[in-house]
Amino acid sequence: MIILGIDPGSRKTGYGLISKQGNRLIHIDNGAIFTKASNEFPQRLEEIFSGLSTIIAQYQPDAVAVENVFLAKNAQSALKLGQARGAAIVAAVSVGLPVHEYTALQVKQAVVGTGRAEKVQVQQMIKALLNLPEVAQEDASDALAVAICHAHSASMNRLMRA
Amino acid sequence: MIILGIDPGSRKTGYGLISKQGNRLIHIDNGAIFTKASNEFPQRLEEIFSGLSTIIAQYQPDAVAVENVFLAKNAQSALKLGQARGAAIVAAVSVGLPVHEYTALQVKQAVVGTGRAEKVQVQQMIKALLNLPEVAQEDASDALAVAICHAHSASMNRLMRA
Repeated sequence: MIILGIDPGSRKTGYGLISKQGNRLIHIDNGAIFTKASNEFPQRLEEIFSGLSTIIAQYQPDAVAVENVFLAKNAQSALKLGQARGAAIVAAVSVGLPVHEYTALQVKQAVVGTGRAEKVQVQQMIKALLNLPEVAQEDASDALAVAICHAHSASMNRLMRA
Repeated sequence: MIILGIDPGSRKTGYGLISKQGNRLIHIDNGAIFTKASNEFPQRLEEIFSGLSTIIAQYQPDAVAVENVFLAKNAQSALKLGQARGAAIVAAVSVGLPVHEYTALQVKQAVVGTGRAEKVQVQQMIKALLNLPEVAQEDASDALAVAICHAHSASMNRLMRA
Protein backbone atom coordinates (compact mmCIF):
# COMPACT_ATOMS: atom_id res chain seq x y z
CA MET A 1 0.00 0.00 0.00
CA ILE A 2 1.37 3.38 -1.02
CA ILE A 3 0.40 6.32 1.18
CA LEU A 4 0.74 9.98 0.26
CA GLY A 5 0.98 12.38 3.19
CA ILE A 6 0.34 16.06 2.52
CA ASP A 7 1.15 19.15 4.57
CA PRO A 8 -0.71 21.92 2.72
CA GLY A 9 0.27 25.57 2.77
CA SER A 10 -0.36 28.49 0.44
CA ARG A 11 3.37 29.13 -0.07
CA LYS A 12 4.72 25.63 0.35
CA THR A 13 2.93 22.28 0.32
CA GLY A 14 4.96 19.37 1.65
CA TYR A 15 4.42 15.84 0.43
CA GLY A 16 5.78 12.48 1.49
CA LEU A 17 5.27 9.04 -0.01
CA ILE A 18 5.78 5.80 1.84
CA SER A 19 5.06 2.20 1.02
CA LYS A 20 3.70 -0.12 3.69
CA GLN A 21 4.82 -3.69 3.13
CA GLY A 22 3.54 -5.84 5.98
CA ASN A 23 4.97 -4.16 9.06
CA ARG A 24 7.74 -2.43 7.14
CA LEU A 25 7.55 1.18 6.06
CA ILE A 26 9.63 2.14 3.05
CA HIS A 27 10.38 5.69 2.02
CA ILE A 28 9.56 6.47 -1.62
CA ASP A 29 9.86 10.20 -2.06
CA ASN A 30 9.37 13.53 -0.30
CA GLY A 31 9.52 17.15 -1.23
CA ALA A 32 7.54 20.35 -1.47
CA ILE A 33 5.54 22.27 -4.04
CA PHE A 34 6.40 25.95 -3.95
CA THR A 35 3.88 28.44 -5.29
CA LYS A 36 4.97 31.62 -7.03
CA ALA A 37 4.53 34.56 -4.65
CA SER A 38 4.14 36.88 -7.64
CA ASN A 39 1.11 34.95 -8.90
CA GLU A 40 -2.50 35.77 -8.04
CA PHE A 41 -3.90 33.57 -5.29
CA PRO A 42 -6.23 31.46 -7.54
CA GLN A 43 -3.19 30.67 -9.70
CA ARG A 44 -1.26 29.53 -6.65
CA LEU A 45 -4.11 27.18 -5.78
CA GLU A 46 -3.82 25.79 -9.29
CA GLU A 47 -0.09 25.20 -8.73
CA ILE A 48 -0.87 23.18 -5.58
CA PHE A 49 -3.61 21.22 -7.33
CA SER A 50 -1.63 20.45 -10.47
CA GLY A 51 1.59 19.75 -8.53
CA LEU A 52 -0.15 17.15 -6.37
CA SER A 53 -2.11 15.78 -9.34
CA THR A 54 1.21 15.09 -11.08
CA ILE A 55 2.60 13.35 -7.99
CA ILE A 56 -0.57 11.26 -7.65
CA ALA A 57 -0.43 10.28 -11.32
CA GLN A 58 3.25 9.36 -10.99
CA TYR A 59 3.14 7.30 -7.78
CA GLN A 60 -0.49 6.08 -7.83
CA PRO A 61 -0.97 6.11 -4.05
CA ASP A 62 -3.77 4.01 -2.51
CA ALA A 63 -4.62 6.52 0.19
CA VAL A 64 -3.92 10.09 1.18
CA ALA A 65 -3.42 11.42 4.71
CA VAL A 66 -3.48 15.01 5.84
CA GLU A 67 -3.15 16.60 9.25
CA ASN A 68 -6.26 18.23 10.63
CA VAL A 69 -5.69 21.85 11.51
CA PHE A 70 -7.71 23.54 14.22
CA LEU A 71 -5.55 26.51 14.97
CA ALA A 72 -4.40 29.45 12.94
CA LYS A 73 -2.84 32.78 13.84
CA ASN A 74 -5.93 34.64 12.70
CA ALA A 75 -8.94 34.37 10.40
CA GLN A 76 -6.98 35.73 7.44
CA SER A 77 -4.22 33.13 7.68
CA ALA A 78 -6.85 30.44 8.36
CA LEU A 79 -8.59 31.42 5.11
CA LYS A 80 -5.35 31.15 3.15
CA LEU A 81 -4.39 27.84 4.72
CA GLY A 82 -7.94 26.57 4.23
CA GLN A 83 -7.86 27.34 0.51
CA ALA A 84 -4.50 25.62 0.07
CA ARG A 85 -5.86 22.65 2.00
CA GLY A 86 -9.00 22.59 -0.16
CA ALA A 87 -6.94 22.62 -3.36
CA ALA A 88 -4.72 19.81 -2.02
CA ILE A 89 -7.59 17.59 -0.86
CA VAL A 90 -9.47 18.05 -4.14
CA ALA A 91 -6.40 16.81 -6.06
CA ALA A 92 -6.94 13.49 -4.27
CA VAL A 93 -10.71 13.16 -3.95
CA SER A 94 -11.30 14.27 -7.56
CA VAL A 95 -9.54 11.10 -8.74
CA GLY A 96 -11.40 8.93 -6.24
CA LEU A 97 -8.64 8.66 -3.63
CA PRO A 98 -9.76 8.41 0.00
CA VAL A 99 -8.43 11.23 2.20
CA HIS A 100 -7.90 10.52 5.89
CA GLU A 101 -7.50 13.28 8.44
CA TYR A 102 -5.52 12.98 11.66
CA THR A 103 -4.99 15.42 14.50
CA ALA A 104 -1.48 16.65 15.39
CA LEU A 105 -1.78 14.59 18.58
CA GLN A 106 -2.52 11.39 16.65
CA VAL A 107 0.41 12.05 14.31
CA LYS A 108 2.89 12.62 17.16
CA GLN A 109 1.64 9.55 19.04
CA ALA A 110 1.99 7.42 15.92
CA VAL A 111 5.51 8.60 15.12
CA VAL A 112 7.13 9.21 18.53
CA GLY A 113 4.75 7.37 20.86
CA THR A 114 3.75 10.49 22.77
CA GLY A 115 1.65 13.53 21.92
CA ARG A 116 4.09 15.78 23.77
CA ALA A 117 6.94 15.34 21.29
CA GLU A 118 8.82 18.35 19.98
CA LYS A 119 9.04 19.01 16.24
CA VAL A 120 12.75 18.10 16.19
CA GLN A 121 12.07 14.76 17.88
CA VAL A 122 9.41 13.98 15.26
CA GLN A 123 11.83 14.81 12.45
CA GLN A 124 14.60 12.64 13.93
CA MET A 125 12.17 9.79 14.47
CA ILE A 126 11.01 9.96 10.84
CA LYS A 127 14.62 9.91 9.67
CA ALA A 128 15.19 6.78 11.77
CA LEU A 129 11.89 5.02 10.91
CA LEU A 130 12.34 5.53 7.18
CA ASN A 131 16.11 5.18 7.04
CA LEU A 132 16.53 8.61 5.50
CA PRO A 133 20.11 9.75 4.80
CA GLU A 134 19.27 13.06 6.51
CA VAL A 135 16.38 14.85 8.20
CA ALA A 136 13.76 15.79 5.62
CA GLN A 137 12.88 19.41 5.07
CA GLU A 138 10.19 20.58 7.55
CA ASP A 139 7.03 20.45 5.41
CA ALA A 140 8.09 17.20 3.75
CA SER A 141 8.84 15.75 7.18
CA ASP A 142 5.36 16.72 8.43
CA ALA A 143 3.89 15.10 5.33
CA LEU A 144 5.84 11.88 5.94
CA ALA A 145 4.66 11.97 9.60
CA VAL A 146 0.97 11.98 8.71
CA ALA A 147 1.57 9.25 6.11
CA ILE A 148 3.20 7.09 8.83
CA CYS A 149 0.26 7.87 11.12
CA HIS A 150 -2.12 6.54 8.48
CA ALA A 151 0.01 3.43 7.96
CA HIS A 152 -0.22 2.64 11.70
CA SER A 153 -3.90 3.48 11.83
CA ALA A 154 -4.59 1.22 8.83
CA SER A 155 -2.77 -1.65 10.60
CA MET A 156 -4.76 -1.02 13.77
CA ASN A 157 -8.03 -1.04 11.86
CA ARG A 158 -7.12 -4.36 10.28
CA LEU A 159 -6.26 -5.80 13.70
CA MET A 160 -9.53 -4.54 15.16
CA ARG A 161 -11.51 -6.12 12.33
CA ALA A 162 -9.66 -9.44 12.68
CA MET B 1 -19.13 36.58 -22.72
CA ILE B 2 -20.49 34.12 -20.14
CA ILE B 3 -19.53 34.79 -16.53
CA LEU B 4 -19.87 32.34 -13.66
CA GLY B 5 -20.13 33.88 -10.20
CA ILE B 6 -19.50 31.64 -7.20
CA ASP B 7 -20.32 32.10 -3.52
CA PRO B 8 -18.47 29.21 -1.86
CA GLY B 9 -19.47 27.63 1.43
CA SER B 10 -18.83 24.25 3.01
CA ARG B 11 -22.56 23.50 3.35
CA LYS B 12 -23.90 25.44 0.39
CA THR B 13 -22.10 26.90 -2.62
CA GLY B 14 -24.13 29.39 -4.63
CA TYR B 15 -23.57 29.87 -8.35
CA GLY B 16 -24.92 32.31 -10.88
CA LEU B 17 -24.40 32.50 -14.63
CA ILE B 18 -24.91 35.60 -16.72
CA SER B 19 -24.18 36.47 -20.31
CA LYS B 20 -22.85 39.91 -21.18
CA GLN B 21 -23.96 40.98 -24.65
CA GLY B 22 -22.70 44.50 -25.29
CA ASN B 23 -24.15 46.50 -22.39
CA ARG B 24 -26.90 43.99 -21.71
CA LEU B 25 -26.71 41.41 -18.97
CA ILE B 26 -28.78 38.29 -19.48
CA HIS B 27 -29.51 35.79 -16.75
CA ILE B 28 -28.68 32.19 -17.67
CA ASP B 29 -28.99 30.14 -14.52
CA ASN B 30 -28.51 30.23 -10.77
CA GLY B 31 -28.67 27.78 -7.91
CA ALA B 32 -26.69 26.15 -5.16
CA ILE B 33 -24.69 23.00 -4.58
CA PHE B 34 -25.56 21.45 -1.25
CA THR B 35 -23.04 19.15 0.40
CA LYS B 36 -24.14 16.17 2.47
CA ALA B 37 -23.70 17.00 6.16
CA SER B 38 -23.31 13.28 6.91
CA ASN B 39 -20.27 13.01 4.63
CA GLU B 40 -16.66 13.43 5.76
CA PHE B 41 -15.27 16.87 5.04
CA PRO B 42 -12.93 15.80 2.16
CA GLN B 43 -15.96 14.21 0.46
CA ARG B 44 -17.90 17.45 0.79
CA LEU B 45 -15.04 19.29 -0.92
CA GLU B 46 -15.33 16.74 -3.72
CA GLU B 47 -19.06 17.51 -4.01
CA ILE B 48 -18.28 21.23 -4.42
CA PHE B 49 -15.52 20.55 -6.95
CA SER B 50 -17.50 18.07 -9.05
CA GLY B 51 -20.72 20.11 -8.83
CA LEU B 52 -18.98 23.21 -10.18
CA SER B 53 -17.01 21.17 -12.73
CA THR B 54 -20.33 19.90 -14.13
CA ILE B 55 -21.72 23.44 -14.32
CA ILE B 56 -18.55 24.68 -16.03
CA ALA B 57 -18.67 21.83 -18.55
CA GLN B 58 -22.35 22.53 -19.23
CA TYR B 59 -22.25 26.33 -19.66
CA GLN B 60 -18.62 26.83 -20.76
CA PRO B 61 -18.13 30.22 -19.04
CA ASP B 62 -15.35 32.54 -20.23
CA ALA B 63 -14.52 33.84 -16.77
CA VAL B 64 -15.21 33.12 -13.12
CA ALA B 65 -15.74 35.68 -10.37
CA VAL B 66 -15.68 35.11 -6.64
CA GLU B 67 -16.03 37.45 -3.69
CA ASN B 68 -12.94 37.95 -1.61
CA VAL B 69 -13.53 37.14 2.03
CA PHE B 70 -11.50 38.78 4.76
CA LEU B 71 -13.64 38.11 7.75
CA ALA B 72 -14.84 34.99 9.46
CA LYS B 73 -16.41 34.31 12.83
CA ASN B 74 -13.33 32.46 14.01
CA ALA B 75 -10.31 30.54 12.75
CA GLN B 76 -12.25 27.28 12.64
CA SER B 77 -15.01 28.65 10.40
CA ALA B 78 -12.37 30.46 8.32
CA LEU B 79 -10.62 27.13 7.75
CA LYS B 80 -13.87 25.48 6.63
CA LEU B 81 -14.81 28.37 4.37
CA GLY B 82 -11.26 28.51 3.01
CA GLN B 83 -11.32 24.85 2.05
CA ALA B 84 -14.68 25.21 0.30
CA ARG B 85 -13.32 28.26 -1.51
CA GLY B 86 -10.17 26.37 -2.50
CA ALA B 87 -12.23 23.49 -3.91
CA ALA B 88 -14.44 25.93 -5.84
CA ILE B 89 -11.57 27.96 -7.30
CA VAL B 90 -9.68 24.83 -8.35
CA ALA B 91 -12.74 23.65 -10.32
CA ALA B 92 -12.19 26.74 -12.50
CA VAL B 93 -8.41 27.17 -12.64
CA SER B 94 -7.82 23.44 -13.25
CA VAL B 95 -9.57 23.80 -16.63
CA GLY B 96 -7.71 27.01 -17.46
CA LEU B 97 -10.47 29.47 -16.55
CA PRO B 98 -9.36 32.82 -15.13
CA VAL B 99 -10.71 33.53 -11.64
CA HIS B 100 -11.26 37.16 -10.63
CA GLU B 101 -11.67 38.21 -7.02
CA TYR B 102 -13.67 41.22 -5.85
CA THR B 103 -14.22 42.67 -2.40
CA ALA B 104 -17.72 42.91 -0.91
CA LEU B 105 -17.44 46.69 -1.35
CA GLN B 106 -16.68 46.38 -5.07
CA VAL B 107 -19.60 43.99 -5.52
CA LYS B 108 -22.09 46.28 -3.76
CA GLN B 109 -20.85 49.32 -5.66
CA ALA B 110 -21.18 47.49 -8.97
CA VAL B 111 -24.70 46.24 -8.26
CA VAL B 112 -26.33 49.01 -6.22
CA GLY B 113 -23.96 51.93 -6.80
CA THR B 114 -22.98 52.24 -3.16
CA GLY B 115 -20.90 50.15 -0.79
CA ARG B 116 -23.35 50.78 2.02
CA ALA B 117 -26.19 48.77 0.49
CA GLU B 118 -28.07 46.23 2.61
CA LYS B 119 -28.27 42.59 1.52
CA VAL B 120 -31.99 42.94 0.68
CA GLN B 121 -31.29 45.95 -1.55
CA VAL B 122 -28.63 43.97 -3.41
CA GLN B 123 -31.03 41.06 -3.93
CA GLN B 124 -33.80 43.36 -5.22
CA MET B 125 -31.36 45.10 -7.54
CA ILE B 126 -30.19 41.80 -8.99
CA LYS B 127 -33.80 40.74 -9.58
CA ALA B 128 -34.38 44.04 -11.44
CA LEU B 129 -31.07 44.06 -13.38
CA LEU B 130 -31.49 40.48 -14.59
CA ASN B 131 -35.28 40.52 -14.98
CA LEU B 132 -35.69 37.60 -12.61
CA PRO B 133 -39.28 36.45 -11.90
CA GLU B 134 -38.45 36.52 -8.18
CA VAL B 135 -35.56 37.25 -5.82
CA ALA B 136 -32.92 34.53 -6.12
CA GLN B 137 -32.06 32.43 -3.11
CA GLU B 138 -29.39 34.11 -0.94
CA ASP B 139 -26.21 32.27 -2.00
CA ALA B 140 -27.25 32.21 -5.65
CA SER B 141 -28.00 35.93 -5.43
CA ASP B 142 -24.54 36.64 -3.99
CA ALA B 143 -23.04 34.59 -6.82
CA LEU B 144 -24.99 36.57 -9.44
CA ALA B 145 -23.84 39.80 -7.73
CA VAL B 146 -20.14 39.01 -8.10
CA ALA B 147 -20.73 37.89 -11.70
CA ILE B 148 -22.35 41.28 -12.43
CA CYS B 149 -19.43 43.00 -10.71
CA HIS B 150 -17.03 41.23 -13.06
CA ALA B 151 -19.16 42.15 -16.09
CA HIS B 152 -18.94 45.84 -15.13
CA SER B 153 -15.28 45.60 -14.32
CA ALA B 154 -14.58 43.93 -17.68
CA SER B 155 -16.41 46.79 -19.47
CA MET B 156 -14.43 49.36 -17.50
CA ASN B 157 -11.15 47.67 -18.37
CA ARG B 158 -12.06 47.72 -22.06
CA LEU B 159 -12.94 51.43 -21.82
CA MET B 160 -9.67 52.18 -20.06
CA ARG B 161 -7.69 50.35 -22.73
CA ALA B 162 -9.55 52.16 -25.54
